[in-house]
Amino acid sequence: MRAAFFEGNRTFRVGDCAEVAPRAGQVQIKVEFCGICGTDLHLFHGAMAHRLTLPHVMGHEMSGTLAAVGESVANWRVGDRVTVRPLDPCGACPACRMGHSHICHNLKFIGIDTPGALQGMWTVPAHTLHRLPDSLSLREGAMVEPIAVACHDVRLSELQAGEFAVVIGGGPIGILIALVAQARGARVLQAEVNPFRLQLARDLGIDAVNPVDTDLPALVNQHTGGAGADVVFEVSGSAAGCEMMTRLPRTRGRIVVVAIYAEPQKVDLFRFFWRELKLAGARVYEAEDFDGAIRLAASGKLPLDRLITDVLPLSRLEEAMHRMERGGDCMKILVSCTD
Amino acid sequence: MRAAFFEGNRTFRVGDCAEVAPRAGQVQIKVEFCGICGTDLHLFHGAMAHRLTLPHVMGHEMSGTLAAVGESVANWRVGDRVTVRPLDPCGACPACRMGHSHICHNLKFIGIDTPGALQGMWTVPAHTLHRLPDSLSLREGAMVEPIAVACHDVRLSELQAGEFAVVIGGGPIGILIALVAQARGARVLQAEVNPFRLQLARDLGIDAVNPVDTDLPALVNQHTGGAGADVVFEVSGSAAGCEMMTRLPRTRGRIVVVAIYAEPQKVDLFRFFWRELKLAGARVYEAEDFDGAIRLAASGKLPLDRLITDVLPLSRLEEAMHRMERGGDCMKILVSCTD
Repeated sequence: MRAAFFEGNRTFRVGDCAEVAPRAGQVQIKVEFCGICGTDLHLFHGAMAHRLTLPHVMGHEMSGTLAAVGESVANWRVGDRVTVRPLDPCGACPACRMGHSHICHNLKFIGIDTPGALQGMWTVPAHTLHRLPDSLSLREGAMVEPIAVACHDVRLSELQAGEFAVVIGGGPIGILIALVAQARGARVLQAEVNPFRLQLARDLGIDAVNPVDTDLPALVNQHTGGAGADVVFEVSGSAAGCEMMTRLPRTRGRIVVVAIYAEPQKVDLFRFFWRELKLAGARVYEAEDFDGAIRLAASGKLPLDRLITDVLPLSRLEEAMHRMERGGDCMKILVSCTD
Repeated sequence: MRAAFFEGNRTFRVGDCAEVAPRAGQVQIKVEFCGICGTDLHLFHGAMAHRLTLPHVMGHEMSGTLAAVGESVANWRVGDRVTVRPLDPCGACPACRMGHSHICHNLKFIGIDTPGALQGMWTVPAHTLHRLPDSLSLREGAMVEPIAVACHDVRLSELQAGEFAVVIGGGPIGILIALVAQARGARVLQAEVNPFRLQLARDLGIDAVNPVDTDLPALVNQHTGGAGADVVFEVSGSAAGCEMMTRLPRTRGRIVVVAIYAEPQKVDLFRFFWRELKLAGARVYEAEDFDGAIRLAASGKLPLDRLITDVLPLSRLEEAMHRMERGGDCMKILVSCTD
């Protein structure tokens, strides 16, 4: 089989790779598709280098079929169509003991801390598996992981049907949050500066504006009778987004910070006091978010086909990274791992 | 009757003042005691000058007895012992309509936007009244307002009995939060740099440390088996407190920002992501917080007598402000308004 080996210095080498037979509690998956995540791009750029052992195989947004099942694995058979929730918690730390194993103090993120899915055959713990229904194609099944991120973010926001939500940032996660929020019955406004992403959001039926040439607080007040937004998702990871997020919510409105900020940001805490705002950080997902994402994807309500702008073979992974860097003409790029 | 008129430029003039007869829906209170709040000190220093009409009478932490009752005021009689919840909401804005009238968009804070209690007779809307039980002295009754702030902050934190809370800052509100949290069954650690306040907290039975010479995150981990604090109250209003508040909570731990920050602060949003922290801003109080504060004060469980370090006559108000500025030997200063 073949794998894409990240060798550091913005370089992949695609070559042969030995298969890893599944041990007890593990399964081996024939990987069909693997999406490229913003995190993979960060790794490509040299981020989190201390967590990688080079050459490293990335990838954690995938779909495939079971090729082999290790001992002591119940309920799974060769041929089952699956995706993977790529979290391997320790089970013993205070976070795990409190039921927050998805943000375990010693969490191994599969695809960063251990080898990922950008290879023909992938061996993972069986506890990470989620079954894909027959009604969901493997192509769309590779979108379950980012949809689960959006489901988690929307769940933590406690968004109710009929509420008004603003999503700051319209990359793959931002657009999925907008779509999941709409599917939950919310009214949604998306703010995005990139013209390609802005147009795609509009094409998908999302009310989207460029915050550079729109008075966003005024627009939100117009939509909400002067009250402000019920929920704001900050997904842009920008200082401007961080400044805007506190200007939009109503009294007791909720902000969910989805973006990952490497550096502390200036935050208007006075506004938290003045309107009794709430803020929650959100990280990855829990099992129920994967279940919800699979249900939603299989329902056909999400325009996943439009979000997948490209499917490239493993051999063109470096090109895919450069396309994502430029960002002007792609949304979600899938890699076909069967070549 | 006499009143303390703030004339700007850090100056009070104590002089005669005309009584204001209560109109329909109003009552006139013979003010017994009025506490001096940090907000009053800010006004004294020139803050919020645009909200004041000089000469201005400050004061909103008070106790007294009803001297006259206007028309259309049910359930209140001359002689009733009362305190005032000094909020006058508009009743019509989006916040009021959502049930958040305590943070009404057009809120009048009585004592800032309208005349306050540092006078012999005070006329206010009857809807602001709370009855003081006979078991609570008028001296301690003047502490109900700041206790209600603490009750509100603790309520918004969703603190449970047995949980571990850290209070950053040990002024009057910080100490009251610690005491209310302890009364609710929580384990509490207080962080305070001022030696007088630190010692007073300890004298009141609070586990208090100076964060300058203590490794606070390590101490919190020791107390919580490595998990982190369930709740952190940031009451210091300092950049150091703001930096510390994100380092202490457990996964999904809650931060309540009580301090009022005039300027945006650097906040470690990565930590919100990493541990899925939550933050809530808290402002003033609601009716149920006053009810809770009165019950708690009347229960005798709070060492209010130790928190009231001074009782001065109205004529010495300026001196009281200077004592608070120095902060080295006082906690709550009450003004006797009957002289």
